[in-house]
Amino acid sequence: MIYLDNAASTPVHEKVIDEMIPYFREQYGNPSSIHKYGRLARIAIQDARKRIASLINADEAEILLTSGGTESNNTAFYGITHQSKGKHIITSSIEHDAILEPCKRLEAEGFQITYLPVDRHGLVNHEDVEKEISSDTCFISIMFANNEVGTIQPIKEIGEIANEKKVTFHTDAVQAIGKIPIDVKELKVDLLSMSSHKINGPKGVGALYIKKDVKIDPLILGGGQENGLRSGTENVANIVGFGKACQLAKDNMSQNQEYVGKLGRKLVFEILKEIPHTTLNGHPEKRIPNNIHFTFLGVNGEDLIIKLDENGIAASTGSACSVRVQKASHVLKAMGFSHEQITGSLRLTVGISNTEKEIDETVQILKKVVTELRAVSPYKEKYNF
Amino acid sequence: MIYLDNAASTPVHEKVIDEMIPYFREQYGNPSSIHKYGRLARIAIQDARKRIASLINADEAEILLTSGGTESNNTAFYGITHQSKGKHIITSSIEHDAILEPCKRLEAEGFQITYLPVDRHGLVNHEDVEKEISSDTCFISIMFANNEVGTIQPIKEIGEIANEKKVTFHTDAVQAIGKIPIDVKELKVDLLSMSSHKINGPKGVGALYIKKDVKIDPLILGGGQENGLRSGTENVANIVGFGKACQLAKDNMSQNQEYVGKLGRKLVFEILKEIPHTTLNGHPEKRIPNNIHFTFLGVNGEDLIIKLDENGIAASTGSACSVRVQKASHVLKAMGFSHEQITGSLRLTVGISNTEKEIDETVQILKKVVTELRAVSPYKEKYNF
Repeated sequence: MIYLDNAASTPVHEKVIDEMIPYFREQYGNPSSIHKYGRLARIAIQDARKRIASLINADEAEILLTSGGTESNNTAFYGITHQSKGKHIITSSIEHDAILEPCKRLEAEGFQITYLPVDRHGLVNHEDVEKEISSDTCFISIMFANNEVGTIQPIKEIGEIANEKKVTFHTDAVQAIGKIPIDVKELKVDLLSMSSHKINGPKGVGALYIKKDVKIDPLILGGGQENGLRSGTENVANIVGFGKACQLAKDNMSQNQEYVGKLGRKLVFEILKEIPHTTLNGHPEKRIPNNIHFTFLGVNGEDLIIKLDENGIAASTGSACSVRVQKASHVLKAMGFSHEQITGSLRLTVGISNTEKEIDETVQILKKVVTELRAVSPYKEKYNF
Repeated sequence: MIYLDNAASTPVHEKVIDEMIPYFREQYGNPSSIHKYGRLARIAIQDARKRIASLINADEAEILLTSGGTESNNTAFYGITHQSKGKHIITSSIEHDAILEPCKRLEAEGFQITYLPVDRHGLVNHEDVEKEISSDTCFISIMFANNEVGTIQPIKEIGEIANEKKVTFHTDAVQAIGKIPIDVKELKVDLLSMSSHKINGPKGVGALYIKKDVKIDPLILGGGQENGLRSGTENVANIVGFGKACQLAKDNMSQNQEYVGKLGRKLVFEILKEIPHTTLNGHPEKRIPNNIHFTFLGVNGEDLIIKLDENGIAASTGSACSVRVQKASHVLKAMGFSHEQITGSLRLTVGISNTEKEIDETVQILKKVVTELRAVSPYKEKYNF
C-alpha cells in the first residue's frame, strides 16, 4: 500500500520509537514524584521541551505541552479571549475545525468574529487583517499553512501588524512545523500550535508556544503541571517521542524539504502531463513542500479515494482531521471553487517514507482510476472524455 | 530500585507494549481517514473501547476517550454544570486536585460547593450527601477510592441517593478501576473517570464513562471526534494500550487482588511489628488492596522519601499527581490528623511487578531509615525513641 496521506498522520520514525520505549518499560515514573523515577521522567520532559522549542526558535519556558494540536488551539482561544476586555476576533475562512468550532462557541458567548476571505490560491491578504482591527479586537488567529491545499499564509506580515496594534496573534502551525523553517521571534507570533503526529512523532501530544509575556487561562485544571497551565500527569513517552521528532525534523529540514519536494514536483509534473482536465490547486509557490492538491474535472473525489484505496493508494479529498462527514470543503468554497471543482478534488501528501518508485506507481494507478471514473461520469459528454 | 509508588504511575505491561507498537510503526493512519489505514485505526479504537467498557460493565457507546483522568474530571465538571439550571455542587473534602481545582473555578463562576467531611478513616457518610441535596443541587462528585489513604467510599449508597433525587452523580475512579470489581450499572453512577497509567497502561490516555441518557458539553472542540464530545486526532496507540491494560486488569482481577493484597498485608504486618510508634492510616477494611499508608511519629515524611530514595526505594508522602509542592495533605487534615501525624506520613503502593523479596528488603530498609531519622528527631525525647 502506498501511503500518500501524510498531512492526516505519519508513520512514527524508528528513532522516535527507540527513544520512547524505555519510558514505557523502565522509566515509568510520574514526573511529579520526588524519587529517582520521578526525577528521570522530569529530566526527559525537560530535554524534550528543549528540542520542541528549538524547532521554532522559542525558549523552553515558552513551550506548553498538550495532548495535541486541537487542544493547543482550544487553549489559545479560550485562554486569551476569556480574560480579554475586547470582544472581537479576527480569523480566516479557511481555518481547521479546531479553530472554527471554538470560534462558534465564542460567538455564542457574545464575541464577534471576522472571517477573512482568501484569494483563488487560498491566500489571506495581510492588509485585510489591518483593516479589520478595531479597539475591540482581542485576538487574531491565522493558520500557518492550510491543511487542504497547503498554502502558506503571510504570517510575518500579520505578525508585524498584530505587534504594532498590540493584539495577541496566534497561528495554527500544525501543518507547517518541521516542513519549513519557523522562527517565532522573527515572525512576532504570540502563540503557535504544534502537533507531533504530523512530523513522524506519536499521536496524543502537541504543544502551544506561548511568548514569554503572554498570559493565558488554563483549559484543564488539577495537579498544577505545566506551571498550572495544563494539569494532568504528563504523557512522558509521547512527549519524549515528540521531542525526538522535532530534533529529527530540525536536523534534516533541508534534506527532507529537498527530498519530499522532489517527489512532490515529480508527482505534479507527471499527473498534469498524463491526466487531462486536471488542475493543481493552492498557491503555485507559497506552499508546504509535501502538499499536492488537484481537481480532476468530472470525477467524484469520494469515489476516487475509494477506488485508489482498492488499488493500494491511501489518499484524501481534503481534511482528514475531522470525522468522516461528506460535506463540501469550506476551504475550496472560500477559494471560489465551483461545486464541480470541489467535488473532483484530491489531496496527496508526501512524506519522508515515500519513494520515487511509489510516485511512478501512483501516477499510473491514478491515471487508470480517473479514466475509469470519467468513463461513467455524468460530465462525460461535456468534457468529451 | 524497589518501586512502591504504583498509585502515582505504573510500569507498562509487556503485553500492552506489544499491542501498542504496531500502531506507531505500521498502522499509523488517522482514524478519520476513509482509506485502509484509517479503517484499521478506527477498528483498533473500537476494540479498545469495548475492553475499556467491559472493565466497568458499561456499553462501549458510553465510553468517551480522553487524554487522562484529569481531563475526564474536568470534562465531567464543566460538561454537566455549564448546562445545568442548578448552581449547587456536592463533593468531598478529600478529592484529588483534579476535582478541587475545577470546583474553585466553578465557585468563582457563582456555583456553591459543599465539601463533605470525612471520618477518621477518610470515609464520607452517604447520609451527609442526602442531607445536603437541595433543589439547586446539579452535580455530586465523590471519589471512588482515595489516592492517598486508599479508603473506598460508599459509592453504591450515594448512587442510590443521587438516582432517587435525580442529581447527576460522578465518581473519580482513577485509583479504583482495575483494582476492585466495578459495575457502573449496579452502582448507579452517571459519570466515572478512568486513567490508563495507574493500571499498567500507557500515560496520556483515559476515559470518562457517560451513562447513555446523560448529556454533556464538550471541553475541547474541533474535528468532531468522539461524537463531537472530544475533538482531536485520537491517540490510537495509547488507546490500544489502555484497552489491553483494561482487559488484563479484568481477566486477572482476582489473582492480582490476591497477590497485591498478600504483599500489602505482609508489608503492614512486618512494619507494625518492626517499627514502633507507627500507625496504619485509612480504613481498616474498606481500602484498595495496593494502598498502604503509615504515620511514623517523629519523622518528617519528605526526609523519609529522600532517605528511602537514597536507599533504593521509590515511595511517596501522599499524592504524587500534583506538582512538587510541599504542602500539608488536605486529605489527612480532613481526617482530623495533627500536624505531627501529617508530617510523618508515608504512602507505599504495591503493584503487580513487586515481589515478596522486595517487601522483605523494604521492611529492613524502612526500619533502618526510620531509626536513623528518629535519632535526630526533635521529638526524640517526647517519645523516648
